[in-house]
Amino acid sequence: MSTPTLTAHARPATFEVDAVNERGETVPTAIAGEHALTLYLDKRELVTLMTLGAAPEHLALGYLRNQRLVADVGEIAAVQVDWDTGSVAITSHSLAQRGVALWDDPARGASLAGRLDRRTVTTGCGQGTVFGDLMDELDRVVLPAHARLTEEVLYTVMDRVRRHESIYKVAGAVHGCALCANAGDERGEILRFVEDVGRHNAVDAIAGWMWIEGVGGADKVFYTTGRLTSEMVIKCAQMGIPFLLSRSGLTQMGYEIARRVGMTMIGRCQGRHYLLFTGGERFVRAAATELA
Amino acid sequence: MSTPTLTAHARPATFEVDAVNERGETVPTAIAGEHALTLYLDKRELVTLMTLGAAPEHLALGYLRNQRLVADVGEIAAVQVDWDTGSVAITSHSLAQRGVALWDDPARGASLAGRLDRRTVTTGCGQGTVFGDLMDELDRVVLPAHARLTEEVLYTVMDRVRRHESIYKVAGAVHGCALCANAGDERGEILRFVEDVGRHNAVDAIAGWMWIEGVGGADKVFYTTGRLTSEMVIKCAQMGIPFLLSRSGLTQMGYEIARRVGMTMIGRCQGRHYLLFTGGERFVRAAATELA
Repeated sequence: MSTPTLTAHARPATFEVDAVNERGETVPTAIAGEHALTLYLDKRELVTLMTLGAAPEHLALGYLRNQRLVADVGEIAAVQVDWDTGSVAITSHSLAQRGVALWDDPARGASLAGRLDRRTVTTGCGQGTVFGDLMDELDRVVLPAHARLTEEVLYTVMDRVRRHESIYKVAGAVHGCALCANAGDERGEILRFVEDVGRHNAVDAIAGWMWIEGVGGADKVFYTTGRLTSEMVIKCAQMGIPFLLSRSGLTQMGYEIARRVGMTMIGRCQGRHYLLFTGGERFVRAAATELA
Repeated sequence: MSTPTLTAHARPATFEVDAVNERGETVPTAIAGEHALTLYLDKRELVTLMTLGAAPEHLALGYLRNQRLVADVGEIAAVQVDWDTGSVAITSHSLAQRGVALWDDPARGASLAGRLDRRTVTTGCGQGTVFGDLMDELDRVVLPAHARLTEEVLYTVMDRVRRHESIYKVAGAVHGCALCANAGDERGEILRFVEDVGRHNAVDAIAGWMWIEGVGGADKVFYTTGRLTSEMVIKCAQMGIPFLLSRSGLTQMGYEIARRVGMTMIGRCQGRHYLLFTGGERFVRAAATELA
């Protein structure tokens, strides 16, 4: 399987503007970038995402992956971001080598178009569009039953995220996601941290990175600053990650989907507090460990 | 102009589930509802929104308004929500009286379809889809130059929102928006407060309410708990509201659009603090008032 060629065109994360505070003082203030990025797959326009632009190539890949528009990253030859036109061109091997766009392949053109036609606008921040059939596919997701998350690793993840230097601390107005290890010496450490003005962009950028790097989800923990809505749970399940953590709350549908796919979901992670909502059989409390 | 007939089918805002905290105690915990609601305009499927379901009829109307799919609320005969099927049927007078769906009206069918074809997924939480041409229309928006917001009214709005009983206080995982008066005896008071799992749903539900009630935006103030991204600023401008407040930060594009349309935008509203970012000529600080 070949690896796609990627540009590396991140945008500056913050910009400084002058604001006036309650004392009438002019205060130089950092604000988060927000840029329109139009995705083209084999020259066909897919969608325009509004993004911070921190990881545009991985975002484009993760979008294709999470929307199930391309099944295998090995089909993609190149991902080229061009900020002058606010676009990212994703080119398949099929087009590059045989001159046949994925859209024009009779076997898949119809199914691709079908996915684009059935759209759902979800509650996620940011990139809220999920194209058809995701719920059907969820029933085929199998999360590892024997994976375990200890309270110690949970606290390590929370601590690492808290200490991480972030755009949020400087400018606010972004959501962050972290992919953390849950095996080996790196257990609890951040492997990948992405922020975006839309939190689903941040998830997708991590999914794109995992895809191209061939990183699996079974021995990972996913942390998000955002709420645990249906779409967040679905994307985490699709990446095969059994543990989903958030400092925020959850919605009813997020809860129901997590139960359905058997995910371990922990919300309200702040300080030394947390609430374990689903999948308690995979969670090992410190007290239980001590007694064992 | 006739007023559409609406159902009144709000869903319960919160549900209780059992969670386990860090002490191993089972804690009954309120979580926010999240429901799929598919919008049909004259029997054609438009989109599926994930919503708290607090104001589904106004949400459907506001969606049509803010996506510029229907120009005049007087064209709509009925809005009927049916949670058994998770759908809302919006019926035009054209279909109800003449049997001609808006989609089949040759004069507008093409432009309606065109709007649906050009979609942008924006950084807003939740309902992130905006259909084409919004930026062009923005240049036609004229916000009242002579409107003024005093610091006193700003603090009143912040105080009213803080005291407001909300789902957020109970369950988290929602964003809130408030439409407040900026004229007469009610100056600073909340006229309408809507929460949703997607903050753009909350904005749209307020836009739908204003539309059906014939409420204008020139003498209003809009408050949101969410970030001031491009889409939030665009929707506020479309409603004709010159003042946009948030307790959160803003993005670069939100800032640029606010400057372009001449909106007064104030972020980081917390306690007695705020940051005035744009449109300072409409803002009257208390000190300035005392000197006058």
